[in-house]
Amino acid sequence: MDLKELAEREGVNWRALEKEVCAGRAVVLLHKNKPAVALSRLCSTKINTNLGISAENGVQKEMRKLRIAEKHGTDTVMDLSICDTDSTLREFLNRSKVPVGTVPIYRCEPETCTDEDFLRAIESHASIGASFMTIHAAMKKKAAEFAIRKRVTKIVSRGGGILAQYMLEKKCENPLYRNFDAILDMLRGTEIGISLGDALRPGCIADANDRAQISELRVQGELVLRARKAGVQVFCEGPGHMPLDTIVANVRLQKKLCHGAPYYVLGPLVTDSALGYDHISATVGATIAAHAGVEFLCALTPSEHYALPNEDDIREGVVAFRIAAHAADVARGRKEAVSRDLALSRARFGLDWRKQEELSVTGKKVCAGNGAPCSMCRGMCPMKRMAKFSK
Amino acid sequence: MDLKELAEREGVNWRALEKEVCAGRAVVLLHKNKPAVALSRLCSTKINTNLGISAENGVQKEMRKLRIAEKHGTDTVMDLSICDTDSTLREFLNRSKVPVGTVPIYRCEPETCTDEDFLRAIESHASIGASFMTIHAAMKKKAAEFAIRKRVTKIVSRGGGILAQYMLEKKCENPLYRNFDAILDMLRGTEIGISLGDALRPGCIADANDRAQISELRVQGELVLRARKAGVQVFCEGPGHMPLDTIVANVRLQKKLCHGAPYYVLGPLVTDSALGYDHISATVGATIAAHAGVEFLCALTPSEHYALPNEDDIREGVVAFRIAAHAADVARGRKEAVSRDLALSRARFGLDWRKQEELSVTGKKVCAGNGAPCSMCRGMCPMKRMAKFSK
Repeated sequence: MDLKELAEREGVNWRALEKEVCAGRAVVLLHKNKPAVALSRLCSTKINTNLGISAENGVQKEMRKLRIAEKHGTDTVMDLSICDTDSTLREFLNRSKVPVGTVPIYRCEPETCTDEDFLRAIESHASIGASFMTIHAAMKKKAAEFAIRKRVTKIVSRGGGILAQYMLEKKCENPLYRNFDAILDMLRGTEIGISLGDALRPGCIADANDRAQISELRVQGELVLRARKAGVQVFCEGPGHMPLDTIVANVRLQKKLCHGAPYYVLGPLVTDSALGYDHISATVGATIAAHAGVEFLCALTPSEHYALPNEDDIREGVVAFRIAAHAADVARGRKEAVSRDLALSRARFGLDWRKQEELSVTGKKVCAGNGAPCSMCRGMCPMKRMAKFSK
Repeated sequence: MDLKELAEREGVNWRALEKEVCAGRAVVLLHKNKPAVALSRLCSTKINTNLGISAENGVQKEMRKLRIAEKHGTDTVMDLSICDTDSTLREFLNRSKVPVGTVPIYRCEPETCTDEDFLRAIESHASIGASFMTIHAAMKKKAAEFAIRKRVTKIVSRGGGILAQYMLEKKCENPLYRNFDAILDMLRGTEIGISLGDALRPGCIADANDRAQISELRVQGELVLRARKAGVQVFCEGPGHMPLDTIVANVRLQKKLCHGAPYYVLGPLVTDSALGYDHISATVGATIAAHAGVEFLCALTPSEHYALPNEDDIREGVVAFRIAAHAADVARGRKEAVSRDLALSRARFGLDWRKQEELSVTGKKVCAGNGAPCSMCRGMCPMKRMAKFSK
């Protein structure tokens, strides 16, 4: 991987980026000969789109969604398939232009599987060639029990649910935690990134920032150091549902407890009550989080909480999160983002609609046949009125 | 107007609210015998929807949009018609269930009108019965000249455009500023609220927080005191486009310079580059602003910047801003908002879809025939998995 090329694309000094990568504060996601994707505070904010098959959609449908997500500017995708996991992952890796993440343990049934099966799932996805994978190794049994006993929505992570059931029924500690050294041995020498799952992410505002969540964050910090020592790239997953006023504090806490590892958050959603519009609730939290230091945002779609997303949902989710990432980059003063807004606004004052379309991060076409003259103000257009005086 | 009834609806001590009203830190908007709407930090965050006719839509279309805005929970509407202004305002006042604001000077042509015409426009809308009206009295000539000389998008307020042209062509100070005492005399004794317009709100990120904007804010502060002295209700309008990291500071500055008067912001938009999705960019800023102290949010629609909104646009804009207001109220710890999220999340864990629909702020229906079992995780549903262990 050519760090110089990547640094140039991001408009950052390559030695500075190299230093961050060596320290583990930056992670680089790779996918065949495609452009590498950097998760780093020196670089632009990145977004991921969740895809994947269940019983009711097929792999072809997901490939169409993949095209849509790529077209609207997703930086990575995750294959969250819950059936035919190996063959679907191969298909994603063949077709995707961006790095592909996966959650290997989705193929494991807690009722019947063994420690060995969890490890084989990880080994299998590693050998197929995933760019990064979620490993829910930071949820300890005690924290899971607390969540189940005290929380309104208990555990809302699929992987967390599988592991909690396994731990409770077998009365054992988290198998991914117990076998974390074996996992590191498997991944050592590969370029695969570990995304430390947040199995105990709060599923509602009332559960946010509780003991279960914070204790998992602490264990993530321990595992970050172990992964770094083994030379395995690592970053941390975060919530979920969080009231707006605790997001900045949560990001700072993650940076502290997890030794500056990149942070990858799902949303966060700033209210539970936006059914059918959770991509908007999540975009609010995501923009704040990215401005506060989050490097990697996981997009939510309008159908979050009630259905697998269709193609429209994927488009709406990706566009909303492109807005979040870009707006955070504007507030962070990133040159490329600020220049883009400036150029678009100049085109706006110039009533140049094609240029506005071209510069927008949304891909929205507004031009009708003759170049979409705006219908908002008619003769009262302040842009036209002021143009006279500003020559 | 019955302050006790209003205080009860808001879940606040009525004497505390009365104190805020007397101090001018709370404003109460009235409309015939409909429920009064309070703009106050003691109360829930309120949202407004902009409607109004231009040459191409008719009044009937706007009445359908009014129904949609009311159905999705707007607290007020503004009639921003630029033709047939008096008759359209009458129609809005007849049909609306919520307070109606207006911008009287939209009927004035700067090329031909006189000071007297501006005042007559205000008097006319007052006598027709508007609940509140935007008066762009705080833009001074020097600040307007600065904006036109230095800014990327100059002046983007319709009313600001009219007044700037008037001042520059007639080489005079803002007629609404010069005649502010006469305006107060007209409104004295009525219950109409003055919404001090921000004619110099930045139209893009590059123009945000500049000298023009801040100087207008200072003049708003002066006018707040004069209006209070005259016994006329008053609040302040604010931007517009602002990078995320300056929103909280802007709100604090307004509270300081404008003596705690309620703040009514348009968005704010946190990027210029969300063409076709400006309601989402604006929802991010609006949520942050409301949490920081803004009492009143003006909704933007997806068609902001390029078209008059259609019915779908109005729905999407109002829903997004209901999310903003609610999420801010959750973060502010308002009991009603927090309880709603909690109840919805209990329904979510209980897989009670009808209840989730009922409690959501979005009005979205997700239930199919047999009650929409979620298609997200199938057998891997963590809610179902955990329900076993939490009995």
